[in-house]
Amino acid sequence: MREREISQAVITRLPRYYRYLGELLEDDIERISSNELSKRMQVTASQIRQDLNNFGGFGQQGYGYNVKYLYTEIGKILGLDVNHNYIIIGAGNLGQALANYTTFERRGFILRGIFDNNPVMEDVTIRGIPVRMMDELKDFIAKNNVEIAVLTIPKEHATDVASHLVEAGIKAIWNFAHTDLAVPESVMVENVHLSESLMKLSYRLKQNGEHAYQKDN
Amino acid sequence: MREREISQAVITRLPRYYRYLGELLEDDIERISSNELSKRMQVTASQIRQDLNNFGGFGQQGYGYNVKYLYTEIGKILGLDVNHNYIIIGAGNLGQALANYTTFERRGFILRGIFDNNPVMEDVTIRGIPVRMMDELKDFIAKNNVEIAVLTIPKEHATDVASHLVEAGIKAIWNFAHTDLAVPESVMVENVHLSESLMKLSYRLKQNGEHAYQKDN
Repeated sequence: MREREISQAVITRLPRYYRYLGELLEDDIERISSNELSKRMQVTASQIRQDLNNFGGFGQQGYGYNVKYLYTEIGKILGLDVNHNYIIIGAGNLGQALANYTTFERRGFILRGIFDNNPVMEDVTIRGIPVRMMDELKDFIAKNNVEIAVLTIPKEHATDVASHLVEAGIKAIWNFAHTDLAVPESVMVENVHLSESLMKLSYRLKQNGEHAYQKDN
Repeated sequence: MREREISQAVITRLPRYYRYLGELLEDDIERISSNELSKRMQVTASQIRQDLNNFGGFGQQGYGYNVKYLYTEIGKILGLDVNHNYIIIGAGNLGQALANYTTFERRGFILRGIFDNNPVMEDVTIRGIPVRMMDELKDFIAKNNVEIAVLTIPKEHATDVASHLVEAGIKAIWNFAHTDLAVPESVMVENVHLSESLMKLSYRLKQNGEHAYQKDN
């Protein structure tokens, strides 16, 4: 219930807290003051206290934060205390790159299947997981309790594939296709539009007075 | 000068306008009203008018927007009217995936080199571009007028590589390594933290009442 009131900005910052706390744990640091955490994360100590107060605090006057406890609790808030089955649709370069990210597995995201529409890819295996053809998609999602689909396909196919996924009962789509998906509100979509991120960098370069060079075409 | 006052939120929306206008162009649509654009983009017409007014308007009463003109102007604002040379550091799966994205080239981002520290990768070519070893990095940046470095390396090496890049005079870093880089303010950094995007999806799944299943470990 408490999470309901949390602003989007706080949610966006939580994974970053989680990352820093994870690094502290790796360094065997058991507790940390909000001032020290503030220095490392380059956000103000009052921002940290305010953010964490959304979830009931966690800090203790004169002691600071218990790193392990805070890490675990933020992990729970982020839903990382349970496993999520996911599939990748699109076994091209990016799909294969993501399939090889074992970090996701450690966070509880379990890769169950990889799909493609290119018959050449049939039965190619990536990290031991065979690439399947799209006609198996619907059955596979139902039988394997798949919650998340990662879309690494060209935008031309994305709308069509998204509607198949919705029919098949998918709960969330991590969308790398460079288009906006129209899906029911009950299906969560998180977009990663790489071109747009690169354009923001280019905008800032221009603002910064870098003029690059003129295009030939 | 006018761009100086633009809020971060508007900047973040510009690439999306650019994308929709590009799609309209592909469909040979020459002009569009803010109402029609609003329907397609699922933002209010008043938001569109307000956003574009930041750059002096572009719309004409009773005519709407000239698609080609608006596309070109937004492209200029985003710095897409010039070319930017870039290199990729880290020739693993993700680095290779990005190297194969020819869309970036069409937007004016020209891949000049790929670097890795693994001797096995030496002289392997990706899209005709040979992988070079890190000891060539500094010279290469200077000689090839490289502005942007894409970091697709493990976080353990990122800090070290970033400081080499800064010394070599790089202007911007597109950072896929899962860590925050400490670089001078004059160097632009745009982070793509994939794990954090996935965690936001997992948070929203949890909020939505999906309970997944308990971890074994």
